[in-house]
Amino acid sequence: MKNKLVLLFFMTVSVVLSQSKPIDYVNPFIGTSNFGTTNPGPIAVRGMVSVSPFNVAGTQNLPLEKDSRWLSTPYIYENTFLTGFSHVNLSGVGCPELGVILAMPTIGNLETDHLKYGSTYSEEKAAVGYYTNKIDKYNIKVEATATTRTGISKYHFPAGKANILLNLGLGLTNEEGAMVKVVSPTEIEGVRSVGSFCYYKPEEAYPVYFVARFSKPADEFGVWKKPRKYTGTEAEWFLKNGESRIKRGYTKEIVGDSIGAYMQYNFEKPTEIEMQIGVSYVSIENARENLEKETSGKTFNQILAASKKEWNNNLSRIKVEGGTKDDKTIFYTALYHTLIHPNTLNDFNGEYPKMKTRETLHTIGTRYTTFSFWDTYRNLHQLMSLVYPEQQSDMVKSMLQVYDESGWLPKWELNATETTTMVGDPAGIIIADTYLKGIQDFDIEKAYRAMLKSANQLESNPLRPGIKDYLNKGYLTTKTTHSGSVSTTQEYNVSDFAIAQLAKALGKKEDYKAFFKRATSYRSLFDKKINLLRPKNDDGSWLTPYDPEYGANFQKNLGFIEGNAWQYTFMVTHDIKKLINLMGGEKPFVAQLEQVFNNNLFDMANEPDIAYPYLFNYVKGEEWRTQEKVSQLLNKYFKNTPDGLPGNDDTGTMSAWAVFSMMGIYPVSPAEPMYAIAIPVFDKVTILLNKKYYTNDKVEIYRVQENSKSHIINSIYIDGEKLSKYFINHRKLSNTSVVKIKLQ
Amino acid sequence: MKNKLVLLFFMTVSVVLSQSKPIDYVNPFIGTSNFGTTNPGPIAVRGMVSVSPFNVAGTQNLPLEKDSRWLSTPYIYENTFLTGFSHVNLSGVGCPELGVILAMPTIGNLETDHLKYGSTYSEEKAAVGYYTNKIDKYNIKVEATATTRTGISKYHFPAGKANILLNLGLGLTNEEGAMVKVVSPTEIEGVRSVGSFCYYKPEEAYPVYFVARFSKPADEFGVWKKPRKYTGTEAEWFLKNGESRIKRGYTKEIVGDSIGAYMQYNFEKPTEIEMQIGVSYVSIENARENLEKETSGKTFNQILAASKKEWNNNLSRIKVEGGTKDDKTIFYTALYHTLIHPNTLNDFNGEYPKMKTRETLHTIGTRYTTFSFWDTYRNLHQLMSLVYPEQQSDMVKSMLQVYDESGWLPKWELNATETTTMVGDPAGIIIADTYLKGIQDFDIEKAYRAMLKSANQLESNPLRPGIKDYLNKGYLTTKTTHSGSVSTTQEYNVSDFAIAQLAKALGKKEDYKAFFKRATSYRSLFDKKINLLRPKNDDGSWLTPYDPEYGANFQKNLGFIEGNAWQYTFMVTHDIKKLINLMGGEKPFVAQLEQVFNNNLFDMANEPDIAYPYLFNYVKGEEWRTQEKVSQLLNKYFKNTPDGLPGNDDTGTMSAWAVFSMMGIYPVSPAEPMYAIAIPVFDKVTILLNKKYYTNDKVEIYRVQENSKSHIINSIYIDGEKLSKYFINHRKLSNTSVVKIKLQ
Repeated sequence: MKNKLVLLFFMTVSVVLSQSKPIDYVNPFIGTSNFGTTNPGPIAVRGMVSVSPFNVAGTQNLPLEKDSRWLSTPYIYENTFLTGFSHVNLSGVGCPELGVILAMPTIGNLETDHLKYGSTYSEEKAAVGYYTNKIDKYNIKVEATATTRTGISKYHFPAGKANILLNLGLGLTNEEGAMVKVVSPTEIEGVRSVGSFCYYKPEEAYPVYFVARFSKPADEFGVWKKPRKYTGTEAEWFLKNGESRIKRGYTKEIVGDSIGAYMQYNFEKPTEIEMQIGVSYVSIENARENLEKETSGKTFNQILAASKKEWNNNLSRIKVEGGTKDDKTIFYTALYHTLIHPNTLNDFNGEYPKMKTRETLHTIGTRYTTFSFWDTYRNLHQLMSLVYPEQQSDMVKSMLQVYDESGWLPKWELNATETTTMVGDPAGIIIADTYLKGIQDFDIEKAYRAMLKSANQLESNPLRPGIKDYLNKGYLTTKTTHSGSVSTTQEYNVSDFAIAQLAKALGKKEDYKAFFKRATSYRSLFDKKINLLRPKNDDGSWLTPYDPEYGANFQKNLGFIEGNAWQYTFMVTHDIKKLINLMGGEKPFVAQLEQVFNNNLFDMANEPDIAYPYLFNYVKGEEWRTQEKVSQLLNKYFKNTPDGLPGNDDTGTMSAWAVFSMMGIYPVSPAEPMYAIAIPVFDKVTILLNKKYYTNDKVEIYRVQENSKSHIINSIYIDGEKLSKYFINHRKLSNTSVVKIKLQ
Repeated sequence: MKNKLVLLFFMTVSVVLSQSKPIDYVNPFIGTSNFGTTNPGPIAVRGMVSVSPFNVAGTQNLPLEKDSRWLSTPYIYENTFLTGFSHVNLSGVGCPELGVILAMPTIGNLETDHLKYGSTYSEEKAAVGYYTNKIDKYNIKVEATATTRTGISKYHFPAGKANILLNLGLGLTNEEGAMVKVVSPTEIEGVRSVGSFCYYKPEEAYPVYFVARFSKPADEFGVWKKPRKYTGTEAEWFLKNGESRIKRGYTKEIVGDSIGAYMQYNFEKPTEIEMQIGVSYVSIENARENLEKETSGKTFNQILAASKKEWNNNLSRIKVEGGTKDDKTIFYTALYHTLIHPNTLNDFNGEYPKMKTRETLHTIGTRYTTFSFWDTYRNLHQLMSLVYPEQQSDMVKSMLQVYDESGWLPKWELNATETTTMVGDPAGIIIADTYLKGIQDFDIEKAYRAMLKSANQLESNPLRPGIKDYLNKGYLTTKTTHSGSVSTTQEYNVSDFAIAQLAKALGKKEDYKAFFKRATSYRSLFDKKINLLRPKNDDGSWLTPYDPEYGANFQKNLGFIEGNAWQYTFMVTHDIKKLINLMGGEKPFVAQLEQVFNNNLFDMANEPDIAYPYLFNYVKGEEWRTQEKVSQLLNKYFKNTPDGLPGNDDTGTMSAWAVFSMMGIYPVSPAEPMYAIAIPVFDKVTILLNKKYYTNDKVEIYRVQENSKSHIINSIYIDGEKLSKYFINHRKLSNTSVVKIKLQ
């Protein structure tokens, strides 16, 4: 029997007694169902490590079993069969990776097969920095918390024989290979090979190192290995062919694809054991140092308290008032999800692995990783620039480090590998957007050079493989690529728009002109007959026959990546005025955009169209449609339930959509430092601003509602001055003390 | 075209010019065919490392291909397809193990599949400490030599692109799993999992560590991995499923079952590269230290010269005069083979791994390993005690270390694992024999305790699992074991005889009596009706029906391990007088023994009956049969050709038989400090004696032949005193200056 309880449930009592803090409103189970692919494991703000319950192995978990399908999360709310706790995990991604360094407490005789030692669990609870459950089979209560680079687990063992298993065979990743060594009765060290994100580039698999420490010396310890099963002649001779081997008391390295280590205890009475696992992508030594620097001399509860405090400090950058408890929970959980990725790659001592060769380098600020830029260029970094500019600054610097090391800006960088997932050239968009918002403490000339490189290099260009046709014809053709000729043209357009914007700001007038022109080349793919974008063939003819709806459900198609013409046509937010013209004016534009929603073509779960609801703001008098749509989408897709995300969180992109939308502002056009305005969910939103980057120390956004029935904006005031459009410039917003959004 | 030439061939010239040294008579190709399982790779005296050409992988080598059959050697003379040079190898064993850390030079584009980069070879030559060939496919000349713990290879590359591959997937062992890391353009470090000797005890697999250094920095480097091939759903998604991955410039650990590392060069002109691979069974650090201490500042030629000098010093302990060049070659090659195993396990700094848990321990003297005692208790250690007593002393001390660490004396110990291969309790026999020969600088009381433990412990006795029946009934029954009830009884008898002999020497009279009685319990398995030993059932009845010849060709049978009644009945050398009585007197005894030879039942290739030819010496007037048989066997089985060993060398046991037999003395009864005498092959044999253990500094054995037709001993004189029997006591021999064996 599974009994999941959110801690929040209990905290309603304390809410009455005292003021609830932002962290009290985080429900880590949001997104753990409906393919949200978040997990409830404790993690520090942008932590390298989390301690996620792992319940995706074993037929008991079918149909959501990791090897039976493309599954990209270590934890699924509905699943019931737990095989341990993984210590490096991705949150909200669409591809299987990491989910390794699995620890599992058991009792009784040693069993090293996770399909046998796995168990159902109950009494599950999660909160910021904390997770607990009870492992039914063994009656062991587990508690977990984490520092940036260390996962801490507390096992409440009953009296008797107890085991702690570190399984390095099992994992969510499709990579294999590990080394493990018992260093002493209180320490295990090792390395696990990971990689092949999205099953791509297995040749760039890489190691993650760890050191595990135990609060009490083990009475016995050892390692195990499940070898490959021989066939043929050797199988006839091999005693115990393919059988797992347990090496008791063994103190040397063991290497192989399916191996593990264990600690054993004989408890006379119920006993708590704490296990700390420090992680590094550089070396075992660094994993050990990370562990020591971050946990030495601290109790579980002290670490948990510090984690909560750090989270609260971060989440408190935005204060919301009014709204229901669910609203606040949805909001702060979304904000929490935007603070998981990008995450820390460097060790405590500043060391991190160089791209590709993985030589050891040193960073001054944080070297961030997990850059899912095709997703996050649209809103997550805009949220960071506004609320956490110091973090955004380090993210841009990390991007430049990647450029220095690999010769190219990142696209989908993960732990110092470029996974080359998705399409387009999104890094420059983020850089331009950041710079134009006044966060400029990085080498902008280098960044600009890097942006020009992928914009112009004709041969061996990993970011814009379609560059030749793009420059010659203005667009990719159905010959250039087998998938996404139109959408990739649009992505390049947005990137070129970003270069143009940045060129303008840097006084590079020629570049500005040239790139602004390039940025609108999508126009020649606009088919006036259908008022939609349409792929063109190599000879310039339209792709015929053509079904603009095809691709809605991720079917691979010639024109669009993960979408169709309806879901992409409006993704030219830098050129909406011209798009309105192309469509024949404001009325047809609004009608066409409404069709997307009315005909069920809008996809809240994927990025290309997520700015659509805000596009009605571009037509005077139609802004109410934006307000209505945003409100409807929030209500429909964002909930205080495990299925409370529309789909993959996409490393916080969906959550960033919710955070902005609930505040009543949205960065509708990447690389344009402005926000479209809709109705905040809350009566008052206070955004604290970092004085290093902004003049004001905060901006307050009020929803002023005369009566409960009003749900349309009447007028907007910026420090008392009425706004004529439903957009606000970033500089204006950050220099404003009070934004008042008055409803009719 | 393969063109094998023994260096000796060329050295005939120098023989004429100057006095040949013992090393000049070593032909490392002897035993590389006919399942001798020696290899021609250079090795230091009792070295941890050898550099063996590896030609047993790939269908080109069928039928002698390693995976298609039970193959126990990295090199076979007839094979033609070379896939590299392995750096840890066993010599003369019957089971597959080690044969790993494979290096291969290639040219052109990188190819990491050994089946593709493998090549035929030519211009092969080998000498003590030296091996060379030319790899046909790449026109690369390879030269190799070795120190105790380092293999040194010199590759003569042509101009152009050159590669040095370190393949950690390939190996003779049936274990898998490795880690490798490129430390710098001149260094690679790693670990390879080995074990499962004889396919036994895979759970005791263990690591061998290495550091490879290159004389020139690589222009490029990298690692590779051939991953497991996924099947099912994952295979559909996995791009490049199962394909090898090359990681260029990668500097981190890579782990897995099939991995490797490479160095690449671009040579403008033909260039020599030297590669040194240091090995350790303790750690990578120790492998590096071994390499540095043993090779630092030394050229290839200096190392080779030092190796030759060390070998010559060892081989010169016995000087032979007269005989043909082939005789000398057979003799010194056999002596060379007895100086390979047991080999060094400890590192330069004295560290070595503890049995089973592999914690790091420290030894003062050499910790020897590769103890194939069921073989070597019969003659090899007797040779060591006589000629290399300081080495034999360390071997006994190593045995006691194993006892200290594991609680039991070794049986078939390999690199700090007890492989439990073969039967019996042979360590005590060796200890007693050594002690009784005056080599006593070890803890004899501890040794005696260890011997008593396996002789008496009834439960969980790994050395004498048949102990209960043995003590109750005097023998193992067909119920006690499914194979070898009689022969294992005999083995225990010999061990008990050794305890009795030692007890007597130590003044433990009660033990002497008790164990002497135990040592003759085989007698109740003697069936007078057939004058042979015969298995008994649990109720004391004879095994019926019974075919005493069954088992001659290693067929598994109830009574005997690797043999039959004929091949075992006389293996009671400690009790031959009683056996003669049992058989009805000297005549029937001689007749029965002659039958073994006449009916082709004698097996020169296996140990149980190898003392048989010397047993005629026990019957006065019949000694000529011994002389005749020994001479015939030497001529038939020991040759200066690759098939010049009767079969597996059994870590030098067959070679020790040849060495003793060619000197005219043989330690016919283990734990009895005496030798049976036959006719030396040489006119004069001078054995240098170690003054630490012996009074004399040498003993000379002359074959005095009046005319060329004489082939029977007439009389034997010990320092002028005529010997009445054809045996000589060890003490007597070592106190003698001149033994004269006069032929009729």
